[in-house]
Amino acid sequence: MARVEPRILKGFRDYLPELEGPRQAMLERVKTAFERFGYGPLQTPALEYSEILVGKYGDEGDKLLYRFMDNGERDVALRYDLTVPLARVVGQYGDLVMPFRRYQIAPVWRAEKPARGRFREFMQCDADLVGEPSVRADAEIMMVGLAVLGALAVPSYEMRVNDRRILDGVLDLVGVPDAGQRVVVLRAVDKLPKVGAEAVKKEIAEAVGLDDAAIDRLFALLFRKIAGPGDLGALGDELAGSEVGLAGVRGLTELLTILEGAGEGARVAVDLTIARGLDYYTSTIYETFLVGHEGYGSVMSGGRYDGLMDMFSGRPTPAVGISLGVDRLLAALTELGLVASRKASAHAFFCLFSEADYAHVCQVANRLRAHGIGVEVALGGGKLGKQLQLATRKGHRFVFLQGGDERAADTVVLKDLASGAQETLALAEAASWAGRLTG
Amino acid sequence: MARVEPRILKGFRDYLPELEGPRQAMLERVKTAFERFGYGPLQTPALEYSEILVGKYGDEGDKLLYRFMDNGERDVALRYDLTVPLARVVGQYGDLVMPFRRYQIAPVWRAEKPARGRFREFMQCDADLVGEPSVRADAEIMMVGLAVLGALAVPSYEMRVNDRRILDGVLDLVGVPDAGQRVVVLRAVDKLPKVGAEAVKKEIAEAVGLDDAAIDRLFALLFRKIAGPGDLGALGDELAGSEVGLAGVRGLTELLTILEGAGEGARVAVDLTIARGLDYYTSTIYETFLVGHEGYGSVMSGGRYDGLMDMFSGRPTPAVGISLGVDRLLAALTELGLVASRKASAHAFFCLFSEADYAHVCQVANRLRAHGIGVEVALGGGKLGKQLQLATRKGHRFVFLQGGDERAADTVVLKDLASGAQETLALAEAASWAGRLTG
Repeated sequence: MARVEPRILKGFRDYLPELEGPRQAMLERVKTAFERFGYGPLQTPALEYSEILVGKYGDEGDKLLYRFMDNGERDVALRYDLTVPLARVVGQYGDLVMPFRRYQIAPVWRAEKPARGRFREFMQCDADLVGEPSVRADAEIMMVGLAVLGALAVPSYEMRVNDRRILDGVLDLVGVPDAGQRVVVLRAVDKLPKVGAEAVKKEIAEAVGLDDAAIDRLFALLFRKIAGPGDLGALGDELAGSEVGLAGVRGLTELLTILEGAGEGARVAVDLTIARGLDYYTSTIYETFLVGHEGYGSVMSGGRYDGLMDMFSGRPTPAVGISLGVDRLLAALTELGLVASRKASAHAFFCLFSEADYAHVCQVANRLRAHGIGVEVALGGGKLGKQLQLATRKGHRFVFLQGGDERAADTVVLKDLASGAQETLALAEAASWAGRLTG
Repeated sequence: MARVEPRILKGFRDYLPELEGPRQAMLERVKTAFERFGYGPLQTPALEYSEILVGKYGDEGDKLLYRFMDNGERDVALRYDLTVPLARVVGQYGDLVMPFRRYQIAPVWRAEKPARGRFREFMQCDADLVGEPSVRADAEIMMVGLAVLGALAVPSYEMRVNDRRILDGVLDLVGVPDAGQRVVVLRAVDKLPKVGAEAVKKEIAEAVGLDDAAIDRLFALLFRKIAGPGDLGALGDELAGSEVGLAGVRGLTELLTILEGAGEGARVAVDLTIARGLDYYTSTIYETFLVGHEGYGSVMSGGRYDGLMDMFSGRPTPAVGISLGVDRLLAALTELGLVASRKASAHAFFCLFSEADYAHVCQVANRLRAHGIGVEVALGGGKLGKQLQLATRKGHRFVFLQGGDERAADTVVLKDLASGAQETLALAEAASWAGRLTG
């Protein structure tokens, strides 16, 4: 066959074993944290009918869909997130026991302009709680998120929380009653960490036509420090004219009270500039930043979206969720030197004295594997020095050897390449020493 | 927003938690088995440039690609298997240490006509060994496959092995020298388990124009019983005129000798009717059937493909691999009653005496989670009977309760819904009793 240049699409990545190993370990911890809270795994197709996805992410989102006609002329698209497929599932299966707790760990696709840290395919880890309108569900899902970061040993982070209804109250106050214009303002505010306050002010002035005084008032309100329930009370006084704004203040107060009572208050801070770009959020919203490394952006975000599911289920279906951007977090932790790369998948490399030993060594290796020891067996019986070199290049610290004497005595030699030490171990007693390699 | 009918594409599936739980557990065991042999995880994009995939799966395969123009007018396609993306990776990254052992667990997409047990999106679990030409690599990868089935507790299975070169020798013998016609015959033979011998004979007669005598001879050779090395020797005598056929006999003999020596011979049988549909196999090929349930088709297949990688790498790059059809196997094991569905993700349900207890119970639940106990916390403090009903509907056997007395004493009540028994346990001693729930 003719030569084909091996190349990958821009914005996509290969994860070679050295990186995929730690990434898998990370996903495993996320999964365990979700399950500890009673969240069950869901898997949905990569492809959906386009009509399921279109219109849920705003005009900008629609443009980023990988959408095409399939071989049967069906209009289909790759999933853009895990939330809308969940909404489809909740609408489609009437017999789910509510409240329904599910998590999904799966890639999503967005035809974004690739940039540093922004990819066209990336993994999402979502937990969502469906069917519970009370703010206890918001508190639970935030605690799930905090538990995930704890399980990943993320050193220092802060979850910043806001309520969309407070933003609506603020917009009532500064004079942006139109729903379309509100969305424009929220999207502009959402870009704050990326583009800075001046650019956001300019965008709002141009797009919505607010005068300088109104914009200053808007920013004074958004940047208000809310350190405790007292500050929320004062904000409530200011928003007294806006029913929706007051509902937001009440909701946020109740949420913070629960988090305090559960002993999680210290890791959560109110930040009224948190806006979230997606259209479907209705009240609580949160983002999570690495303290001192905010430049990486939010590594875990979510909120309550009480309208989205109704359109599939045909009945009021409250829901709240959180999404971990595991690839972004992995990139950040790797740059911070907090992720150990793992070169060898197995615990040890088994060298061959001669090719004729191969079949017997396979049998010995299987006995070691039964004790949980991962063993990579050499395929050739070349010079021992070369085999040891290969073991080192493959990242192994330990090698096994078995000569004629050892084979007769049913033992193996275990050599530590780091120290050079070696010792002879009985295979029948592997249960007693296996932990030295696997532990 | 307007109501949208929640529906899924034909040939695609949702895995709800009850099924996805056991499926995840299965994938976890496969992963562990792969890693025990030193295979490292690889992840590649779902989308590839079409030119990477086209022409590798035969004309039929090309037609089944999900292929489209992306937003940047690039000709792209969803991956059809995990082998060609691996070949692309091996060609693209020149610094991989050989032999390179990798596994990949990921979905693939084929626009097949959906049928019972055949889907357009399905999970593949592949292990491949790249860079080793000796038959020891073939033996290793087959042992990996056998270890996977052992780890999954598959009750009774048989791996059937053949060598493409023997089939070539047989085709030499019966008079099909043309390469294109050989492929047609192999594809027809590959359908044997599905359509039966008569249909295959008819297809070969029509497509290749062999006379009845030649077809009878072909089938006599293919259905020859090969119970040991002696039978292979006799086959070799018959294929003496075909160099390629003899090479196949020698290779298969060597392979079986290693598997016998490694103690794995009993689970492997030679079957000369195994042909494998894909074009790229060059020598050893194998399929695996559930004994007594062959109708499910092969649950694990693979072989050696020494030409495929060269086209990306530009140098001879031998490779051998095996692929587990985990969804087909899961469907088979489920129908055979061998997979327990798992309803609740957590170990216990924590009931609330009142909503005011919620925040404190969250704190208690986190202490239990720190001991590995999965706890789903009730979100409402309604009647206890209703909460217990909900726990049962969610599949829980155990519930926790904490009244004022327990809270003051820092204890919880653990109730076993199966027996009705309940006891009071100290939270400070959770380490000593957690295993009762998690073990």
